[in-house]
Amino acid sequence: MFDGILRNVHKKTPLVHCITNYVTVNDVANALIACGSSPIMADDESDAVDITAICDALVINIGTLNERTIKAMLKTGRKANELSHPVVLDPVGAGASKLRTDTTLKLLDEVKLSVIRGNVSEVKTVYKGSGTTKGVDADIKDAIREKNLDEAITLSRGLSAQTGAVIVITGAIDLVSDSNKTYIIYNGHEMMSKVSGTGCMLTAIIAAYCAANPGNHLDAAAAAVCVMGISGEIAYEKLIKNQAGPSSYRTYLIDAINKIDEEVLKGGMKIEIR
Amino acid sequence: MFDGILRNVHKKTPLVHCITNYVTVNDVANALIACGSSPIMADDESDAVDITAICDALVINIGTLNERTIKAMLKTGRKANELSHPVVLDPVGAGASKLRTDTTLKLLDEVKLSVIRGNVSEVKTVYKGSGTTKGVDADIKDAIREKNLDEAITLSRGLSAQTGAVIVITGAIDLVSDSNKTYIIYNGHEMMSKVSGTGCMLTAIIAAYCAANPGNHLDAAAAAVCVMGISGEIAYEKLIKNQAGPSSYRTYLIDAINKIDEEVLKGGMKIEIR
Amino acid sequence: MFDGILRNVHKKTPLVHCITNYVTVNDVANALIACGSSPIMADDESDAVDITAICDALVINIGTLNERTIKAMLKTGRKANELSHPVVLDPVGAGASKLRTDTTLKLLDEVKLSVIRGNVSEVKTVYKGSGTTKGVDADIKDAIREKNLDEAITLSRGLSAQTGAVIVITGAIDLVSDSNKTYIIYNGHEMMSKVSGTGCMLTAIIAAYCAANPGNHLDAAAAAVCVMGISGEIAYEKLIKNQAGPSSYRTYLIDAINKIDEEVLKGGMKIEIR
Repeated sequence: MFDGILRNVHKKTPLVHCITNYVTVNDVANALIACGSSPIMADDESDAVDITAICDALVINIGTLNERTIKAMLKTGRKANELSHPVVLDPVGAGASKLRTDTTLKLLDEVKLSVIRGNVSEVKTVYKGSGTTKGVDADIKDAIREKNLDEAITLSRGLSAQTGAVIVITGAIDLVSDSNKTYIIYNGHEMMSKVSGTGCMLTAIIAAYCAANPGNHLDAAAAAVCVMGISGEIAYEKLIKNQAGPSSYRTYLIDAINKIDEEVLKGGMKIEIR
Repeated sequence: MFDGILRNVHKKTPLVHCITNYVTVNDVANALIACGSSPIMADDESDAVDITAICDALVINIGTLNERTIKAMLKTGRKANELSHPVVLDPVGAGASKLRTDTTLKLLDEVKLSVIRGNVSEVKTVYKGSGTTKGVDADIKDAIREKNLDEAITLSRGLSAQTGAVIVITGAIDLVSDSNKTYIIYNGHEMMSKVSGTGCMLTAIIAAYCAANPGNHLDAAAAAVCVMGISGEIAYEKLIKNQAGPSSYRTYLIDAINKIDEEVLKGGMKIEIR
Repeated sequence: MFDGILRNVHKKTPLVHCITNYVTVNDVANALIACGSSPIMADDESDAVDITAICDALVINIGTLNERTIKAMLKTGRKANELSHPVVLDPVGAGASKLRTDTTLKLLDEVKLSVIRGNVSEVKTVYKGSGTTKGVDADIKDAIREKNLDEAITLSRGLSAQTGAVIVITGAIDLVSDSNKTYIIYNGHEMMSKVSGTGCMLTAIIAAYCAANPGNHLDAAAAAVCVMGISGEIAYEKLIKNQAGPSSYRTYLIDAINKIDEEVLKGGMKIEIR
């Protein structure tokens, strides 16, 4: 499974344009470099369209959106569509404010998205406006567990059928779905939730993987999720060894992303297909 | 002293809305998670008021203010007041530019503040427009030392009487005052001044502690100052052991914040009451 | 060579005003502190001019420019000129978008620059609008190698003659030129290209060094390039020892900047003069 996906990333070193929040932007940049890609950030309408034209993929992350950057998101998203670049949306906090929900729905309306990645509260909001997003973390009663796994799979497939995008829902268990196939991924470590930005980094890595694997966004996204999860596990081993805390963990996580090749991926991934 | 304050934070895991500067925002996010809280950043008027409504506290840090975010600070501050959320102000660089001084005074005028945290130059500016702020660090002749401690206590109590806020002045010695009681805290390490963002992180942690301890902002703020100082001491031990430098120190500092519980606090705090 | 340059920085601890991109701004702040300087960030027209007035140098980095910050760059640049502060430009991505190229040319037109630092693609764009900038990294066919070293020297001297600024072109080999003298610097490690922000940090350090060495910007800039390169080498040794990755490397790099004194500089620099 996932043969050649990482090799394609390293061969192409895709240039990924990110309109992303300023909280985790540095982690996003370094995670992209670590995974074999190259980042560029540009969030002003008058700059971003030109920048997208020289890139291979676009990330739209609404974490610290404002009127100015929303304009850039929409215009650049349409430009990326024209150029057939993959566009990956991270609807950070959709459901937590009217502006975030409205912007997400407007992006869905005006931009053809390749992948949407969020926690289950955010994805619910995108699907039917029914999420109960508490800040930028998933509502506790929304978290994916074994008992509500079927429900989450139905949600992800429904949103994929509705949007045409691959849907990635991350949590203790991660799902990657198109409208009729779902990867269930059991990699990762709960320590990842003790660090700001793991979701944002994953979103950007998915964009890099999709850019390098244009025929197969479902597998590209699933491979990226596995890489991130395995990196979280490797980082946790180092955390224990060094008796370190969450800030060290963040460093180890990006270090680990840089070390994962196809062999590590194949040996480490814990995945189920439905 | 400070019984239950940290336990309350871990029990409540308060959601803290930060309108904060983009220089240290990532450290602020990770410090909040490390101390048992959860961060969300939103700085646009059209987003921030909704976000504050789902949060438990508000941080206003003027470090990289602009006309757009100033509007959000004022409007969100008033909203937080309506909701009786604690509002903590970090007047970064007040006194260093007209815009920073004016914005600080406007915030004081329009928003009821729970805590104001700054260095002595910034706090002087807030009090009487007489600070000689040199950039974002305290003017050298303003730094709190044993010999001017009494003067600083008078300053902090005066500003507290004037504003109703708890006043936190940080430096080699830290003060936490209301209008008639002052904690003098001797924790911390000078290495903390070699890292950008220690003040911003502390401001956010104070907000989390106040949110979880609504009846007692004075003790909540003082406990947060002790936690930060003890973390600085623990981080310094690790720095020496690993023969590391300031960037490692920042990592160790956030790691340490995550490890402090009531027992470590009680064993480590160096505090005097006046 | 470079006698007293670092000592002057530590004696003066120059305050450096940065209008810089939000991707690497935290690294820039911490690198400035690590090198013996002090950072302040302010990017709004209504704040930045006042802030520059209390500083010793100005950095203009166009990495995430927008209409609002461009205004601040121009106005603050002119103010810094009035005050005879060194102004250092980092034309990030010049050539990659019309806005970046136009802004760079406008800055050249309206502000007297002390130093311009970029990769060879960016510098080519600044010189004659002929660069083929691919994102924020130098175009592969533009990278300085032994075989095109003469061409790069000619480029840097030409741009210096045209602008009056010291020109710093960084890559596998680094050049620091005025119109008739060039330092060729062989320090550094390729691992530095695996971390976001090494260029931005260097730009800011150059500004600090120039502020503390007003009579000799050429040597100040060259010393800063050597310090950064040697730091990259020291950090690489630690990377190998700890079997770490790029995120650890970034931490080690800033740690190393903090340790370099005149003796380490003299012992470590690999430099040639033409």
